[in-house]
Amino acid sequence: MNFRMIVHIVGHIIRIEGLLFLIPSITALVYNESEGFIYAIMAVALFALGSIINFFKPKNNTLYIKEGCVATALCWIFLSIFGALPLVFAGEIPSFTNAMFEIVSGFTTTGSSILEDVEALSHASLIWRSFTHWVGGMGILIFLLAVIPLTGGSNVNLMKAESPGPQVEKSLPQLKQTALLLYVIYSVLTALEFIILLITGLPVFDSICMTFGTAGTGGFGILNTSVGSYPVASQWVITIFMLLFGVTFDAYVLILFRRFKKAFSKEEIWTYFGIVLAAIIVITINIYSMCESLFDAITKSSFQVASIMTTTGYSTTDFNAWPTFSRVLLVLLMFCGGCAGSTAGGIKVSRICIGVKMFLREANSFLRPREVKSIKMDRQTVDSKTLRGTAIYFVSYATVFIVSLILIALDGHDLVTTFTSVVATFNNIGPGLDMVGPTANFSFFSIPCKWVLIFDMLAGRLEIFPMLMLFHPSIWKGTFVKYRKGY
Amino acid sequence: MNFRMIVHIVGHIIRIEGLLFLIPSITALVYNESEGFIYAIMAVALFALGSIINFFKPKNNTLYIKEGCVATALCWIFLSIFGALPLVFAGEIPSFTNAMFEIVSGFTTTGSSILEDVEALSHASLIWRSFTHWVGGMGILIFLLAVIPLTGGSNVNLMKAESPGPQVEKSLPQLKQTALLLYVIYSVLTALEFIILLITGLPVFDSICMTFGTAGTGGFGILNTSVGSYPVASQWVITIFMLLFGVTFDAYVLILFRRFKKAFSKEEIWTYFGIVLAAIIVITINIYSMCESLFDAITKSSFQVASIMTTTGYSTTDFNAWPTFSRVLLVLLMFCGGCAGSTAGGIKVSRICIGVKMFLREANSFLRPREVKSIKMDRQTVDSKTLRGTAIYFVSYATVFIVSLILIALDGHDLVTTFTSVVATFNNIGPGLDMVGPTANFSFFSIPCKWVLIFDMLAGRLEIFPMLMLFHPSIWKGTFVKYRKGY
Repeated sequence: MNFRMIVHIVGHIIRIEGLLFLIPSITALVYNESEGFIYAIMAVALFALGSIINFFKPKNNTLYIKEGCVATALCWIFLSIFGALPLVFAGEIPSFTNAMFEIVSGFTTTGSSILEDVEALSHASLIWRSFTHWVGGMGILIFLLAVIPLTGGSNVNLMKAESPGPQVEKSLPQLKQTALLLYVIYSVLTALEFIILLITGLPVFDSICMTFGTAGTGGFGILNTSVGSYPVASQWVITIFMLLFGVTFDAYVLILFRRFKKAFSKEEIWTYFGIVLAAIIVITINIYSMCESLFDAITKSSFQVASIMTTTGYSTTDFNAWPTFSRVLLVLLMFCGGCAGSTAGGIKVSRICIGVKMFLREANSFLRPREVKSIKMDRQTVDSKTLRGTAIYFVSYATVFIVSLILIALDGHDLVTTFTSVVATFNNIGPGLDMVGPTANFSFFSIPCKWVLIFDMLAGRLEIFPMLMLFHPSIWKGTFVKYRKGY
Repeated sequence: MNFRMIVHIVGHIIRIEGLLFLIPSITALVYNESEGFIYAIMAVALFALGSIINFFKPKNNTLYIKEGCVATALCWIFLSIFGALPLVFAGEIPSFTNAMFEIVSGFTTTGSSILEDVEALSHASLIWRSFTHWVGGMGILIFLLAVIPLTGGSNVNLMKAESPGPQVEKSLPQLKQTALLLYVIYSVLTALEFIILLITGLPVFDSICMTFGTAGTGGFGILNTSVGSYPVASQWVITIFMLLFGVTFDAYVLILFRRFKKAFSKEEIWTYFGIVLAAIIVITINIYSMCESLFDAITKSSFQVASIMTTTGYSTTDFNAWPTFSRVLLVLLMFCGGCAGSTAGGIKVSRICIGVKMFLREANSFLRPREVKSIKMDRQTVDSKTLRGTAIYFVSYATVFIVSLILIALDGHDLVTTFTSVVATFNNIGPGLDMVGPTANFSFFSIPCKWVLIFDMLAGRLEIFPMLMLFHPSIWKGTFVKYRKGY
């Protein structure tokens, strides 16, 4: 393990977080809030701390996959710890566990909150919460851009630890360009949503926060009613942008290069929109009698399906009061998640496609044992490594899920609350059902349970393995000896 | 498809069911119940019908895997249909759907009931219900013994369609001998439990029915309190025998041949008892404050863990009133199930072992990419076919589970009821939680939902694929033409 390099990267990330703190600092200046001092001091302190750490350069800047995993996991953990401190210092969330829960929920784009009255927060803290969504949405890409100059090209492994679905296999210059391109697309879409939200009549501050939450598929609201009290036009804008941010960013790159045919022929995207459309139709029928009109039913079901499927977690209505059928569908959509390579969490549509195809192939080989069929996505054969990886992902997913469920059950809340609290955090959704429903929050959980959920949010966001790596004894064996030696 | 041969096998099975009906007929004679006439008439009618069908011998008696699957699925379906008729004719369960639910629940060794007052049933029908558990427990083995003389040895494929876990790869004489041996072990264990239950003071009729339910890991009780009102000694006897019937029967064969070392070194059995012991300990601690004494807590938790883990489904207490932690553990045990090659249902311990090992291998290959490790069970490498089969089983399991969940949700009952009704039937357990808890029953479901659950019970028992085969169009294409031609 090249621990010096890992520490170097973490130091770099801390320095960047110092810069990120300028956003809430400036916001506090605009609204004349005293919390701004804390954010400003944190900004300076983190920048200084990061610079000091970075002053000592490692002898060797090679990173292997396991080191990439550990570095990624540690970056997210330290980002969250330092990100939570201002909320504690300002007294807005006095408990460190609660503040950590809130900020991990932010960076992992989950959107689960422990705040009983979000409107009591200062503007600086509100924008910081929402901004963490935006930063976390693009995940490692923002860091990659920052870290690439540090290493001699070996950090492709950093990306591998986090990029979902098909692995990134690109040369360094390509990788750097792609990251930059994705980042530009992300920013343009964000700007677009902000402007359209302004046009629909939302105040500037609300537009900014809602846009950050949509872009990262996060879901922190700044009102106690989430999106419910905004105009219907704004709700539709958010619905559409949630769906757009749940699409593979590759598709936008292809569109940018005018390769429309390839962009629109992606199986995953068709499946994604197919599931969304089917869910909207059946839920609309199911909740029709509870709504004022057909349009109202479509508005509510579209918003909620888009919000859950993309793992955003905004709500315009208390879907916990919907009929069982709709609630079961929403819980199933929570597992589903958006497309691979988007800002969404969850299992991802591509994995579900591959899973279903593996099943169909087996059914077929039962009927026609002599016929050997390969599994294809977008007319290309899926290699056996990806197939095995998908199968293993499902097993890991189930393992973490079951262990979390048992631990959360120790708190003794009802079964639906227990089950959906794990579903909502592990898939980076936000709200679950019953006691963690859209009108409720996660504050009532015991401190140990909150840490389990914090782990789940991080594991869900980092696609499980990097977080599990941290618990493997071989990673830490002889750490300090190696650190002194410089490896 | 060799439809003539399939019809021939089904005819044979119907004839055997005619003989099975002698048990309730004789019981009715003992208790002087009028229902006996119906069972006697059915016995004669089925024997005659089966004999007529069997009179026409197929030209070709070869069976391939898909035909084995279809034959197996059809055997279970026809057994259930004809098994349900006496209950309808006697007016004890007037609705055919309900009677079918009850008897499918019997043959699949599920033990879920639609009866609100089981004590109102005649002795003939009570023993018939419990007897279906015993017949279903050994599953195809009883049929194999009967069918082997019919075919020229090709029905190894029939066995493949149903035997769980590692595939049976044996020559015909070996297969016949093994089946006979397993059947003798099954009978001896059954007789043993019956005698010990008598000694603990249970009446003869109760001992017979309880033994049938334990041996098949079924779970139909003949009292409204299930096993709760029997003496504690009887409860412990049932606990131990439930656990014994959940062990791979291979182990008993090995013990019979004095190969003790091999019998006691089986990984699956150790894991099985490990899970049982761990669950008993933590549940005992969790429910201690609700019980009269430590012994009472151990008695209740041992009984319930054994009952759920082996997918029997008896209860001595209303575990729906237990704390969330215990209920979550019980629901997880429902998925787990007993050992492969036992009479238990569920996913099976061996599959879970393989799943966990696949996960550990992947975690290891992350850390040490150059090291290629094979997965071993009982010190033998698990071949890639079994690994793929296990992965596909999980995907199929999830698919059927999710579709069932959506369909049952249409009935609009609460989430826990909806979820656990599918868990309890698909894993062949019996009771679930809340409205389908141990003190409740399944009668309130709508007729379509009952048929979904009937399908789930059959799919669970036949390890999914044979039931899914029935829905594949290619199976039925040109059936009648082929039938006339004799293939």
